[in-house]
Amino acid sequence: MKNLLLISNSTQFGSGYLEHCAEQVKSFFSGVENVLFVPYALQDLDRYADKACATFAEMGLSMKSCHLHADPGAAVRAADGLFIGGGNSFRLLEKLYRLNMVDAIRKRVGEGMRYMGASAGTNMACVSIRTTNDMPIVYPPSFSGLNLVPFQINPHFFDASPENQHMGETRETRIAEFHEENAEPVIGLREGAMLHVDGDRMTLLGKNGAKLFRRGDPPLEVKVGSDLSYLLG
Amino acid sequence: MKNLLLISNSTQFGSGYLEHCAEQVKSFFSGVENVLFVPYALQDLDRYADKACATFAEMGLSMKSCHLHADPGAAVRAADGLFIGGGNSFRLLEKLYRLNMVDAIRKRVGEGMRYMGASAGTNMACVSIRTTNDMPIVYPPSFSGLNLVPFQINPHFFDASPENQHMGETRETRIAEFHEENAEPVIGLREGAMLHVDGDRMTLLGKNGAKLFRRGDPPLEVKVGSDLSYLLG
Repeated sequence: MKNLLLISNSTQFGSGYLEHCAEQVKSFFSGVENVLFVPYALQDLDRYADKACATFAEMGLSMKSCHLHADPGAAVRAADGLFIGGGNSFRLLEKLYRLNMVDAIRKRVGEGMRYMGASAGTNMACVSIRTTNDMPIVYPPSFSGLNLVPFQINPHFFDASPENQHMGETRETRIAEFHEENAEPVIGLREGAMLHVDGDRMTLLGKNGAKLFRRGDPPLEVKVGSDLSYLLG
Repeated sequence: MKNLLLISNSTQFGSGYLEHCAEQVKSFFSGVENVLFVPYALQDLDRYADKACATFAEMGLSMKSCHLHADPGAAVRAADGLFIGGGNSFRLLEKLYRLNMVDAIRKRVGEGMRYMGASAGTNMACVSIRTTNDMPIVYPPSFSGLNLVPFQINPHFFDASPENQHMGETRETRIAEFHEENAEPVIGLREGAMLHVDGDRMTLLGKNGAKLFRRGDPPLEVKVGSDLSYLLG
């Protein structure tokens, strides 16, 4: 039974690290003793692990970072919960492949290990990283992700502003380009929003909602509390 | 003798396609009869080529699209000028590799073929596409670009706004992440700005200027008209 908490952003404007989703995180990892942190999306692993583990400790949760293990893949096989933090998706995915963590994570999630991702960690859970917002600073051996859900998420999703005078593509234009080349549905998760997958059920939690993009269909606004289980099928 | 015109954006807010840089484009291709257009950054090749070639015709320039040739690489070998239009950098680069155009373009640029790029077409001219803003909708066989200049450009560069409440990385943060993994200098080209490379000389043209990021140094504001030849060395 899969159990996933996929968060758009680890920090909400005006509040602290994981503060906006603390309630959901506590509930998600309730009773899980052996949570492992994956810090590879950022460069400074020690500092990132310190911050994340301290925040977990404040929530009454025990977490250790996989970069302190000689064999991170073995650490995954021994974990009952996993949190992959945000940062750069290309750097993170390249590291997961290089450290042979991809198959280990997929296997443990299938066995019931709880998986939480924020931002780049949420991109990892998808079919591929083809809907990340990050700069491609590192060339990974593949864009294929952990494939824990059969769709794509665009974290930090935001709507086009009519006042915007910048001519770079809007987020919706980028997702439309994705659909020119790929078929998977894309959930644009606004900051504050998160998806909870519990077996064959999926619900939108948090605040600010999401926008669902399916190839060939007009975008669909999704309200917090919505049942999105049909996207798991 | 290399001759490159590397434009940040093909459309400026409030004006038409290539209108903000029409003067520089006309001057750059002045006397060049056989200009080839590369439309692969967008999906609809016919429509894109029609628009670009019509805009060139209005400027008194003759241009044909390479997608109408059976062998686009051969078309490059016969061209005296090239314009690679904007769109998605990942899709574009994958196409250039698949159609065996990378070496042909590099060779012709070395022989003096004029190369103009806008947005994704400007990304192509760099060492790699690792400073593109685009979504990675297609997996190219490499991130290595045409390597016509020994640095990186970030097109559509914009400065962080103090009012911004979105928690996605700012452009400067993304470029700092690039420098955690790579050594090349990055020129953040604001919309309206462009670089002209003429042999061993490089000048910043257009408007709104640029910001130069070198690994380990504070960012440097670059004014229009600045001589940037030292970055070619």
